[in-house]
Amino acid sequence: MADQYARSGDGKRPTGIPALRWEEPPEGPVLVLLDQTRLPADEAELVCTDAAVLVEAIRSLAVRGAPLLGIAGAYGVALAAARGFDVEEAAAALAGARPTAVNLAVGVGRARAAHQAELARSGDTPQAAAAALAAARALHREDAEASARMAAHGLALLDELLPAGGHRVLTHCNTGSLVSGGEGTAFAVALAAHRSGRLRRLWVDETRPLLQGARLTAYEAARHDMAYTLLTDNAAGSLFAAGEVDAVLIGADRIAADGSVANKVGSYPLAVLARYHHVPFIVVAPVTTVDPDTPDGASIEVEQRPGYEVTEVTAPQVPVAGAGGGIPVAPLGTQAYNPAFDVTPPELVTAIVTEEGAVSPVTTAALAELCARSRQVTIS
Amino acid sequence: MADQYARSGDGKRPTGIPALRWEEPPEGPVLVLLDQTRLPADEAELVCTDAAVLVEAIRSLAVRGAPLLGIAGAYGVALAAARGFDVEEAAAALAGARPTAVNLAVGVGRARAAHQAELARSGDTPQAAAAALAAARALHREDAEASARMAAHGLALLDELLPAGGHRVLTHCNTGSLVSGGEGTAFAVALAAHRSGRLRRLWVDETRPLLQGARLTAYEAARHDMAYTLLTDNAAGSLFAAGEVDAVLIGADRIAADGSVANKVGSYPLAVLARYHHVPFIVVAPVTTVDPDTPDGASIEVEQRPGYEVTEVTAPQVPVAGAGGGIPVAPLGTQAYNPAFDVTPPELVTAIVTEEGAVSPVTTAALAELCARSRQVTIS
Repeated sequence: MADQYARSGDGKRPTGIPALRWEEPPEGPVLVLLDQTRLPADEAELVCTDAAVLVEAIRSLAVRGAPLLGIAGAYGVALAAARGFDVEEAAAALAGARPTAVNLAVGVGRARAAHQAELARSGDTPQAAAAALAAARALHREDAEASARMAAHGLALLDELLPAGGHRVLTHCNTGSLVSGGEGTAFAVALAAHRSGRLRRLWVDETRPLLQGARLTAYEAARHDMAYTLLTDNAAGSLFAAGEVDAVLIGADRIAADGSVANKVGSYPLAVLARYHHVPFIVVAPVTTVDPDTPDGASIEVEQRPGYEVTEVTAPQVPVAGAGGGIPVAPLGTQAYNPAFDVTPPELVTAIVTEEGAVSPVTTAALAELCARSRQVTIS
Repeated sequence: MADQYARSGDGKRPTGIPALRWEEPPEGPVLVLLDQTRLPADEAELVCTDAAVLVEAIRSLAVRGAPLLGIAGAYGVALAAARGFDVEEAAAALAGARPTAVNLAVGVGRARAAHQAELARSGDTPQAAAAALAAARALHREDAEASARMAAHGLALLDELLPAGGHRVLTHCNTGSLVSGGEGTAFAVALAAHRSGRLRRLWVDETRPLLQGARLTAYEAARHDMAYTLLTDNAAGSLFAAGEVDAVLIGADRIAADGSVANKVGSYPLAVLARYHHVPFIVVAPVTTVDPDTPDGASIEVEQRPGYEVTEVTAPQVPVAGAGGGIPVAPLGTQAYNPAFDVTPPELVTAIVTEEGAVSPVTTAALAELCARSRQVTIS
């Protein structure tokens, strides 16, 4: 199985390697991934020459983040088609690489459908492969555009809420270009503020247990020369008390119909702190994150992750969802409570920002209206 | 310099090794310490045969925790006297081993004063050494007694606040027998509840960045067969939201005259969560923690610790205040905000429990009255 590390960082300022890109060298097309398991210590690229290598990369979390997984899956189908492999077999393997990531199956399905349709129409294999690639590129572009629109809407909201400028924004987990075809969700808003000269400070929660803030968000912030400061999750309280936080910006894994927000564990305590200190708490996510079939927060099932993520500490070199091969920090046999995310009720959410605009206050009716508008746009 | 590891754990259930004990084998008296830098991986004892070994143990954090440092310092003076070393020289070295630990200097001073007084009275060196040892033992005993009284008062308060029993208690940092001559402060209350069959669950915050909860509190809880569960600090919000926390019990580093409580960073967010969820937030500390010269929370200077404690992860084998020799988890050059503690205002504190009783509600007048009562008891 052909894979190789094309490039490795030297530990200095991170460079601008995209999370994922399609290339067509003379040897044939490849999908090049930035290996997220090695960040921030190494900026190593993983070159996928077939879908099987990509499946392995998805499983090992070298590529992660819901929207990015969808894009990667679509390119994986295009890669199989372009290299003459069995497209149906590749699509099945890719879609099943991480069964809980719905975006992955959706992205794979979209490229596969384009491939099948073109094959049925023209019977031409290269043309079908081109159709799969076009579908992957369209998904990639749409996701990038949604990022850009979320960033614009989010920055407009920030400027409205904080007319004095000099925004000091606290964020949690990783929501930038490492999880997106574009510049992400919450991070994209902070980045837009930075580019417009209105970001004074990005406070980066380290985000235990897997340290996505320390490992990935700090990496992205450094890459963009943003003024950022890392902190332990439990130090956020001191920042609020000192009046050092103007707004909280987070992403979302799922938003219920009533506006309850499931996001990385640690989001809810920030929402409570933000409310206590009268600081806006803003959720940034694409409209597809709103799930009308989930009526409320209580209906959201919270994934419990293995205790070893807490009882052991993993280094950047160790895959973040390895089999517990980290360094033990608690007594052997220690039981750990390790929910992957928590749920913030709508009354603690100042606004939900999507590519279609912001909803504030967050109500069932306002969210439903937004989703209807989004579907209209898609249909038109 | 004679030191040796007398015993090493086998990774199974921790045994009942005390944090510190005085022994008199035929080879001469020694002070035996449980090496806290090696917990929980190894239960290794460090045998101090002279004050210089103890000074090194204090500097390397093999022995730590304000009350325990005072006791160790007093025994160190007794050790120098019993072994015929220069007592004044030993006392000076011990008192200066960690300049910010006021209890250390106080403990050293108490044993030194007893030694000097007996030497002046009788001129008998062995009798003076015995007086120093008696002073150390008295301090040790008094601290253990204060722990026991705090535990009793704290448990009575818990039972009063939660008459249904089956207490589910959340704690932060390490406040047990590893920081005390007895069973500690907040942890001692949870332990008393456990012994009386009224502790259903001890929720242990891991306490980033130095992981005192994961490393030390989990160790102590396992040692006492308590029903405990470890969690990342940011997962506490989910527990509150699920109604799984009946009370928060924490210690204190300093309490201002108005009842503002400085404690390990992460305490304040718990206080805000507890208030939001109508859960009692209880501080357990000896009366000596109340500092009448600090009028309020704003007057408490918050120590900022080195950023590498956040940007690097240290393993149990690495001393917790080393020179940054941990595993990097953030990009090189990342700046970190790392306050050692935070300040909880009195309006968020349900009660302060001391060896002289509990204060609730927490007011300047009630605290002053408690301190006056304590002085009366000491004088009588």
